[in-house]
Amino acid sequence: MNKSKNDFSESYASLWSPISGGITAPRGFLATGVHAKLKESGKLDLALLVGPEGTICSGKFTQSVFRADCIDLCKQRIKNNKGLIRAVLINSGQANAFTDLVGKQDNLKVTKGISHRLGLNENEVLICSTGVIGVRMNVQNMVDSFEQLIKSLNKSGGNNAAQAIMTTDLIEKEIAFEANLGNRKVRIGGMAKGSGMIHPNMSTMLGYLTCDASLPKEIWDSVISDSIEESFNAITVDGDTSTNDAFLGFCSGEPIANEYKEDLILGINKVTKYLAKEIAKDGEGSSCLIEVTVKGTANNKEARHIGRTVCGSPLVKTAIHGSDPNWGRIISALGHANILIDIKELNLSIGEFEIIKSGKTIEFDRNNCKKYIMKKQSTFSRSKGTVEISIKVGSGSGQATTWGCDLSKDYVTINADYTT
Amino acid sequence: MNKSKNDFSESYASLWSPISGGITAPRGFLATGVHAKLKESGKLDLALLVGPEGTICSGKFTQSVFRADCIDLCKQRIKNNKGLIRAVLINSGQANAFTDLVGKQDNLKVTKGISHRLGLNENEVLICSTGVIGVRMNVQNMVDSFEQLIKSLNKSGGNNAAQAIMTTDLIEKEIAFEANLGNRKVRIGGMAKGSGMIHPNMSTMLGYLTCDASLPKEIWDSVISDSIEESFNAITVDGDTSTNDAFLGFCSGEPIANEYKEDLILGINKVTKYLAKEIAKDGEGSSCLIEVTVKGTANNKEARHIGRTVCGSPLVKTAIHGSDPNWGRIISALGHANILIDIKELNLSIGEFEIIKSGKTIEFDRNNCKKYIMKKQSTFSRSKGTVEISIKVGSGSGQATTWGCDLSKDYVTINADYTT
Repeated sequence: MNKSKNDFSESYASLWSPISGGITAPRGFLATGVHAKLKESGKLDLALLVGPEGTICSGKFTQSVFRADCIDLCKQRIKNNKGLIRAVLINSGQANAFTDLVGKQDNLKVTKGISHRLGLNENEVLICSTGVIGVRMNVQNMVDSFEQLIKSLNKSGGNNAAQAIMTTDLIEKEIAFEANLGNRKVRIGGMAKGSGMIHPNMSTMLGYLTCDASLPKEIWDSVISDSIEESFNAITVDGDTSTNDAFLGFCSGEPIANEYKEDLILGINKVTKYLAKEIAKDGEGSSCLIEVTVKGTANNKEARHIGRTVCGSPLVKTAIHGSDPNWGRIISALGHANILIDIKELNLSIGEFEIIKSGKTIEFDRNNCKKYIMKKQSTFSRSKGTVEISIKVGSGSGQATTWGCDLSKDYVTINADYTT
Repeated sequence: MNKSKNDFSESYASLWSPISGGITAPRGFLATGVHAKLKESGKLDLALLVGPEGTICSGKFTQSVFRADCIDLCKQRIKNNKGLIRAVLINSGQANAFTDLVGKQDNLKVTKGISHRLGLNENEVLICSTGVIGVRMNVQNMVDSFEQLIKSLNKSGGNNAAQAIMTTDLIEKEIAFEANLGNRKVRIGGMAKGSGMIHPNMSTMLGYLTCDASLPKEIWDSVISDSIEESFNAITVDGDTSTNDAFLGFCSGEPIANEYKEDLILGINKVTKYLAKEIAKDGEGSSCLIEVTVKGTANNKEARHIGRTVCGSPLVKTAIHGSDPNWGRIISALGHANILIDIKELNLSIGEFEIIKSGKTIEFDRNNCKKYIMKKQSTFSRSKGTVEISIKVGSGSGQATTWGCDLSKDYVTINADYTT
């Protein structure tokens, strides 16, 4: 593996050690999650994340033509405040998208309410929503819960916040890493929710990252943007993009010394890749993560496009679900990625099993390959493994890794029955 | 409805009457289907279609980078012979794609064998294959069945041929129409197979059309090409494109008088649209056809793109499967079609139920809308109805109708278990 800024070899990986605490692991960040009677299930449904003074925020949002109003509000406030954003309120259960002017007013009301209680200017506070499109938030219930929300805000509230942003997710998704950069400990944390409507061309989910070492706004923007390209924009669950998708990256504290900038970026990429893979793995009804590595294209973008096409193919997804090394479907998906491939250069492996080499099929142990896939599958969220597919399509230097999940009957059940 | 060449009003529809016979309804065309021991199930698996002397053939083929060799053979022979093609052999069960040089040689062997027995030049004979990628045809079994194949060739063999080209299709797909054009009866027939790997950007299936009135090669090419754009390229089952997809349109007999050319095109469009809809309706595991009509775009292409995006969305497909008028998912799909939509102009209906008008949601009878969807659903192939979704996205003159099907647990079962 090359030691590039977008990649991390063993030595780099060990620079960043996993720690507990999620988004509240970095110093100065507080969070919480409460039940604000937004979900009928009684589960946590309202999260709040607050950063220390001077926190800088960079955002990436859905590319959908129909954006929820909260997306426009986030964009506008980040822009107007030159990234100086202190807090974000996140409700789950209702998308508050396509709710007309009233939905817009609801956003203004709740951000005004929470900012006053936090002693912040309302322009420093964002809101994100996830849930059913066309359904408003219950503003009264939200406002009624603000006292509890602020009371419970604390420096180990990351896990509660991660739980409160879930919809059909089976497990909360959070992570934190720590590294010694020079004479200081730097921490990076993150949380995300996904499950359905997960497809590249933006984060297509909710994701939050916190970091207690800072970078100037423009540099932070490009670091977050690059990191998302190779993580959240490299996954697909069902090819659908939501109206509400948002990723917010917050940094605060002492600026990082220039010599440690690349190390910091490695940590940020670890967090975004971990969360993106967790989202793909927790795709509705999935039994495993599918990791497709593509090499030999003209550039990384082409490799990512090919990888996402393979990961997104319902026929590949169902074959993996059936533990079936049906490589013809991978070929079929490659074929319609619309990128010229030199068949003489084509290599294809599933796990350790070489299936195509230099464009020619190789006799492979189909039964053991089937067993390899089966071993990676589990109905228990925390036991799901990764089915690795490696593809070389030419001699170019482009490469990318992309992630998806298998397609099961449970995906259909979840989505045919999901409350309207 | 406008009375354009791509559309047919009541008066036009009545010009062409349905008749029996499928691809052998037009005079001079013979066909058959036999069991050549290619499928283990014992079902028909080898079809032959033969046209009279002077038959002209136009072909449209998969856009996949990995084309089966039979596709290249078809293209090359049609080109070399200036469209003068007399017969096509079609096997089901093996795609003979990605089978290297031996697959290529197999194609040459079987087309040579059948052409000699038919007394034709081998360049006048094509071959199409459908089935599992990477698996060769059993050439010996095919050759052994040629005697039976040619003996059974007859002018009412269309249905047997339509059965012999099926793979996971539940029902054979064939149709024929007849019209009086001036002083003569003109007949057009067709057959197709589909089921999985059905997505626009080519026919993505096997389709055959026969017509006993002829047009000059160049005009026939453009008529077939236009007709496919609005039929086979307006459907999607799972977004996957195959290595072997092919559509062949054959015409023969007396040239059609210029004044009846538009009438002939209407008949051809009736055949291709019928077959395309049958393919979408018979999509693996589906319980209904979904018809999405989009109006108000800048051009028809944009409308078709939006329609296919809605038809192809797994979240829309599963919602319809659950008889759930979850219009938020339609909005979400519209939003990521990447075509600018003027929200003030947006109208959305499911069946008779208006849900959005001029960008504003309307209170609609959700229970009755649910019942409307349920009534269209059936597990019996021949009882499936059509769930109609109408969308207006602006004031442009572009429009298109596209088709898909719902996504069920059975799709997963079929594709997780389909033999490798």
